[in-house]
Amino acid sequence: MFKLIHKDNNSKARLGRLTTARGEINTPCFMPVGTQATVKAISPAELEECRAEVVLANAYHLFLRPGLEVIKKAGGLHDFMSWPKPILTDSGGYQIFSLALLRKVSDEGVSFQSHFDGLKHFFTPEDVIGTQKGLGSDILMPLDECVHYPCAKDYARVAMERTIDWAGRSKTAFIRPMPAGRQEFSGVSNDNCSLLFGIVQGATYEDLRKECVGRLVEIGFDGYAVGGVSVGEPKNLRYNITACMSEVLPQQAPRYLMGVGTPEDILEAIDFGVDMFDCVVPTRYGRNGTAFTSTGKLIIRNAPYIQDYGALDPACKCYTCRNFSRAYLRHLFNTDEILGLRLVSFHNIYFYLELMQRVREAIKQDRFKEFKKKFLSQYNSQPCV
Amino acid sequence: MFKLIHKDNNSKARLGRLTTARGEINTPCFMPVGTQATVKAISPAELEECRAEVVLANAYHLFLRPGLEVIKKAGGLHDFMSWPKPILTDSGGYQIFSLALLRKVSDEGVSFQSHFDGLKHFFTPEDVIGTQKGLGSDILMPLDECVHYPCAKDYARVAMERTIDWAGRSKTAFIRPMPAGRQEFSGVSNDNCSLLFGIVQGATYEDLRKECVGRLVEIGFDGYAVGGVSVGEPKNLRYNITACMSEVLPQQAPRYLMGVGTPEDILEAIDFGVDMFDCVVPTRYGRNGTAFTSTGKLIIRNAPYIQDYGALDPACKCYTCRNFSRAYLRHLFNTDEILGLRLVSFHNIYFYLELMQRVREAIKQDRFKEFKKKFLSQYNSQPCV
Repeated sequence: MFKLIHKDNNSKARLGRLTTARGEINTPCFMPVGTQATVKAISPAELEECRAEVVLANAYHLFLRPGLEVIKKAGGLHDFMSWPKPILTDSGGYQIFSLALLRKVSDEGVSFQSHFDGLKHFFTPEDVIGTQKGLGSDILMPLDECVHYPCAKDYARVAMERTIDWAGRSKTAFIRPMPAGRQEFSGVSNDNCSLLFGIVQGATYEDLRKECVGRLVEIGFDGYAVGGVSVGEPKNLRYNITACMSEVLPQQAPRYLMGVGTPEDILEAIDFGVDMFDCVVPTRYGRNGTAFTSTGKLIIRNAPYIQDYGALDPACKCYTCRNFSRAYLRHLFNTDEILGLRLVSFHNIYFYLELMQRVREAIKQDRFKEFKKKFLSQYNSQPCV
Repeated sequence: MFKLIHKDNNSKARLGRLTTARGEINTPCFMPVGTQATVKAISPAELEECRAEVVLANAYHLFLRPGLEVIKKAGGLHDFMSWPKPILTDSGGYQIFSLALLRKVSDEGVSFQSHFDGLKHFFTPEDVIGTQKGLGSDILMPLDECVHYPCAKDYARVAMERTIDWAGRSKTAFIRPMPAGRQEFSGVSNDNCSLLFGIVQGATYEDLRKECVGRLVEIGFDGYAVGGVSVGEPKNLRYNITACMSEVLPQQAPRYLMGVGTPEDILEAIDFGVDMFDCVVPTRYGRNGTAFTSTGKLIIRNAPYIQDYGALDPACKCYTCRNFSRAYLRHLFNTDEILGLRLVSFHNIYFYLELMQRVREAIKQDRFKEFKKKFLSQYNSQPCV
């Protein structure tokens, strides 16, 4: 399913291709986040325009609203949201451990109350796989136990052991039909073409992380995700985890660093050999009027842009940059016009995907280090205004 | 500038073409409202997709934010908002009389405080023409005095007399350069290609309305707008005004019924010989999740659509209807996702412009009455859910 096409000569950066039933994903890749079956403020046609090859959705959110039944009857998530290309579904483990109320975790599973209507639910790892099968996801993630930062080592081990146990049960559920009595979680069909990733936990403890990798590899997954990062830990600790993961993760499987990150973070992680990323930052920042540009972040509401008739990023070829000035975008944000957040969100997604395209080009030509250095030097050349 | 192409044999409906420096407008036409230099939530590319030939903007709003200077330096409103086709600018008379604070009207002009920051302003009719020249508008509207409904006849006459006086001064300002001392209102250039309409006032009094038409025609304008409608008067009074206007307005000039309306209202007015319309309804309703369809209005949040996988309007060919189900759109509104209001706003604009296209086709073939009857019978066939 995953082909490692080329390894950069001067770094650990990897060029790869992940094949799914719904299309190929060229790696390193960035997956725009469509938590509730929509990348916020962006249409599927615009995602195609940005050359997105995969989007992420969230099983926890979609189970709660609109409910699995609604999506199954639509023919699955792809038809429901009108996105024919690959979808990776997050299990929602992170959301259950961050958003949900009155959470109780046991070896059997996790009980919680919905964060928006207070209804009680109980999810087992098997249920969560069933939900993702029901959605018709191309890449499924198992339920895991996420810990906060900082986390005592004792508890980090407990959560890791549970995550590994759940990973094993998820694998079994992934390859077998749903047992009777939990039919509400069962998928429309198991097309045998979807992929299941394992999620590495272990907080900031290198030995736990490495042990977790070894035991997940024994179970065997189509790819490996590094979870429990971007949960408040200092940047250097995150880099340490990423670096040590890169040593022990199998070369022939894709590596996914969950929830990361800014352009700088992504380039660092690619340097360590990471292949896949997702992050809400481009759309969340876009809605708040912060644009990513080749010379750094730009806060469009700020006064210097009142009469700035240049493009958001003169180096960018997206619809927003080809047609609208900073002065106009500032006016739209200043007057609370929806078109403003649309245009900046679109630009940010385009910027991220264009960056990944250029990264892949650079790796192909063994000049990733050079590309990264040049990009970051320009990206950091101006103070953020 | 205006060519009356054909008059329907069985009604007063007219087929026409208004020529501006920035393109032709086929009438009857509907002008999507872009008050603050954006049709709410819709991009210019999408307006082109809907085959919009003209949009409306508002001189009052744009004078306040971002200010005339910002737009003039952008090269005018068309460049600022990236809309190359015709723009009609409303003077903002209606907004000054409905939104602005501490309003004081005199024969000289109107003083008021901005509705959003309380700053004091004084506009003369000449200033308002200057502002619209500065914006680079294709069709300019003079400052008028709008009265509320109901309005005593005495005051309706005062306001009408003032409106006529201001219309004359506007015409003079339109054809002459801005005098010294009011340079902040002066245009980048007077290209002599723009059009100036007159606005008929007179509240609900037929004799005042008719007198107003006569005196405006004496001054001479490129088109005539019926103002002070849709201000709370009963529907039958509005129809009366429209009908009596149609008798006295010159045949060879375009007729614009300001701020109207729903599909039913527009068809009624076309039947009386009106050529141009604008209304916030398609976008405002779109943002609230109410769609216009060939079988009437549809409130997408409602329960019947939870598992309705049909298009918003199966008879519509827009992007929204080609790609998304009612169930998906309901989910988007239910989860406060911006894509929902985008897709329904877009559909509504498309629906309105498609309706006008079909109206023009029907007039051409002398079957407007038949078309109207058939459309309304289908449109009213189902209760609004």
